[in-house]
Amino acid sequence: MAVYTRLGAEEMAAIIAAFDVGTLISAKGIAEGVSNSNWLIETQDAQGALHRFILTVYETRTDTADLPFFLDLLDHLAARDCPVPRTIHDRNGASHRFHEGKALALIEFLPGISVSEPTRAQARAVGAALAQVHLAAADFPAERRNSMGPDAWRQLLGDCGSEGLESIHPGLAAIVDRELAALSSGWPSDLPSGVIHADLFPDNVLMLGDEVTGLIDFYFACTDITAYDVAVTHAAWCFSADGAGFLPDLSVALMEGYESVRPLSQMERDALPLLAQGAAMRFLATRAYDWLNTPNDALVTPKDPMAFVRRLEFYADPANAGVFSS
Amino acid sequence: MAVYTRLGAEEMAAIIAAFDVGTLISAKGIAEGVSNSNWLIETQDAQGALHRFILTVYETRTDTADLPFFLDLLDHLAARDCPVPRTIHDRNGASHRFHEGKALALIEFLPGISVSEPTRAQARAVGAALAQVHLAAADFPAERRNSMGPDAWRQLLGDCGSEGLESIHPGLAAIVDRELAALSSGWPSDLPSGVIHADLFPDNVLMLGDEVTGLIDFYFACTDITAYDVAVTHAAWCFSADGAGFLPDLSVALMEGYESVRPLSQMERDALPLLAQGAAMRFLATRAYDWLNTPNDALVTPKDPMAFVRRLEFYADPANAGVFSS
Repeated sequence: MAVYTRLGAEEMAAIIAAFDVGTLISAKGIAEGVSNSNWLIETQDAQGALHRFILTVYETRTDTADLPFFLDLLDHLAARDCPVPRTIHDRNGASHRFHEGKALALIEFLPGISVSEPTRAQARAVGAALAQVHLAAADFPAERRNSMGPDAWRQLLGDCGSEGLESIHPGLAAIVDRELAALSSGWPSDLPSGVIHADLFPDNVLMLGDEVTGLIDFYFACTDITAYDVAVTHAAWCFSADGAGFLPDLSVALMEGYESVRPLSQMERDALPLLAQGAAMRFLATRAYDWLNTPNDALVTPKDPMAFVRRLEFYADPANAGVFSS
Repeated sequence: MAVYTRLGAEEMAAIIAAFDVGTLISAKGIAEGVSNSNWLIETQDAQGALHRFILTVYETRTDTADLPFFLDLLDHLAARDCPVPRTIHDRNGASHRFHEGKALALIEFLPGISVSEPTRAQARAVGAALAQVHLAAADFPAERRNSMGPDAWRQLLGDCGSEGLESIHPGLAAIVDRELAALSSGWPSDLPSGVIHADLFPDNVLMLGDEVTGLIDFYFACTDITAYDVAVTHAAWCFSADGAGFLPDLSVALMEGYESVRPLSQMERDALPLLAQGAAMRFLATRAYDWLNTPNDALVTPKDPMAFVRRLEFYADPANAGVFSS
C-alpha cells in the first residue's frame, strides 16, 4: 500500500516513451498493491485523445521470471472478453521492461471501485466472472506452480513455531496442528485443475454497480485445482471483515453466479468444505507469518490472522458442509 | 505522502453524490500531499463524458477554519486564468463538506507532472506563473496571517534547542543564532504585500513540457510580503537537491520569467537577499524540527535540514547579492 520506487518526471516520461501510447501528461503514485509500486498514468495521443494506464514497478516480492505468465495471462483472458486489464506491449512487442534493475509493465486502466460491503447481486457477478476466467483460461498454454500451496502453508506455519502461534492466540498452535493433519490426509489430487486467480478478495475486483469491470492483481495466479479458487473466493467474500460472521446470502449468490457459468461437478462440490479449509489455512499462514515478522516501523500494518482462524473453524465444522450448495 | 483515511466504496460514492459531477466510476488513493489524504476520482456524467477530480480529506495539520481562504483563493485565481485547480462546490454551493468529523473538498484535476530537474525554460515559466498569481490575487478580499513567518521560525528553532541543532550538525546552533539576529534587525516592513503561495517547490507545480499546467497545494498560502514569495520560489528551484549547488542559469530564468509579468521595484530587488535568507530559515526551521521530532516508525522520512543551511549561507554571503538581478 505504498510507492516504494521514486521516479522523476523525466525518468517517467522516458519510460512511457518506450510504449506507443502518446505523450505522458500525468502520473500519480497510487496507494494500491501490497508489494509493488503503482502509478496511474495519463497520456495524450496525436489526435488529442486521452488514455489511462497503470504502471507497475515490480519490487522484490515478485519474481520477474513469473512475469510472462502473469502478463500473457491478462492478454489471453482479455482477448476472451474476461473483465481483466490488457498488458500494453512496448514498441518492440515486449510485455515488460527493466528500469534500473527493476521490471515494470504498463497495464490497461479499468474503471470501477472495490466494494467493501458487497451486495448479493455483486457477489453473484463476482462468482460469474470467476467462472468465466476459469473457462477462458482452459487453453492458456503456460503453467505456474502455486507458490502458496500446501507446502508453503506448512513452511510458513513451521517458521512461526508453536510459541509464535500461541503468542498470536492461546490454543492456535493446536488448532493449526490438527487442521494441517486433516488437510494432509484429505487434500484431493483428482479434481479438475487449470489457471486460478488464487487471491480474489474484494480489493482485487473493480465494480460499477452490480457489474464487474475488472479482476486485477493476478500476481498469485497459478495452475491448481479449479474448485480451490472457488473456495478462496468464498472465504474472501462471504464473511464479515473480522471473519466472525458468515454471510449466507452472499454465499448463495456467489455460488449461484459461479454455477450459472461453470456448473461444478459433484466431486468438486463435495470437496469444497475441505478446499475452503485449505483456503482459510493459506491466508492464516501468510497473515500469521507477517504478524510475527513485520517490523514495528514497517509501512504496512499486518492483517489480523484470527479472521482466518474463525473461517477455518467455520469450514471445519461438519454442520456447515452444506453452504456450498447453491 | 500517504492515505491516512480509509473510505469504503459505498462511503466514497455517497461523498461524491453530494456534488453535481456525475456517477463515481473510479477512486484511487494517491501518494501526494504530506499531511492530507488524496484520491484521484473519475466520474461519468449523464452524457457519458468522463471527468476527473482530486478529493482531499484534511487531516489534523490543516485548520479547517482556513479552508474558505484556501478554496476561495483557488476559485479567484482560476477565474483570472491562473493555472490553478478550481474548487468544485457541492449541490448546496459549499466549497467543503464534513465526513465523520473531517473536512473534505473536491478539486479540479489538472494534467501535468512535477519536474525533478527543471530546465531554464521551465524555471522561466514558473517565475511567470508566480507573478501572474501575485497580480491576480491583488483583489482577493480575504486575508490570512503567515503561520510560518519569522515568529514561527523562532518558535520552532527554540523548540529544537541548541543541543538539538548541534546534534543535526556541529556549529548549526551558532549559525542559526547569528542569522536569526540578522533577520530580526533587517526584516522589511515597508514592501508590497498580498496573497502569496509560500511553498512553491517543484512538487507543487505541474508542467507539460515548458508549460505550467497547475500550481497546486495552496495550504501555506497567506498574506505576506510579495517579494518573499519570489525568494521562497528561488530557494526552491535554483539549487541542486542537496542545496550545495547554486544553479545560476535557473536563477536568471526564474527572475526573468517573474519580471516579464510583474517587474520588481528597486526596493523589492534590494530586499531579496535578506528575504531569501528568511526563506531558507523558514524551511531550515521546519526541517530541523521535523528531523528531531519525527518518530522512527513514522510513514514519512524527514527531509535533510542541511540542504537549507547551505542555501542560508549562500544567501547570507554578500558576494551572492547580485543573483536576483535578472
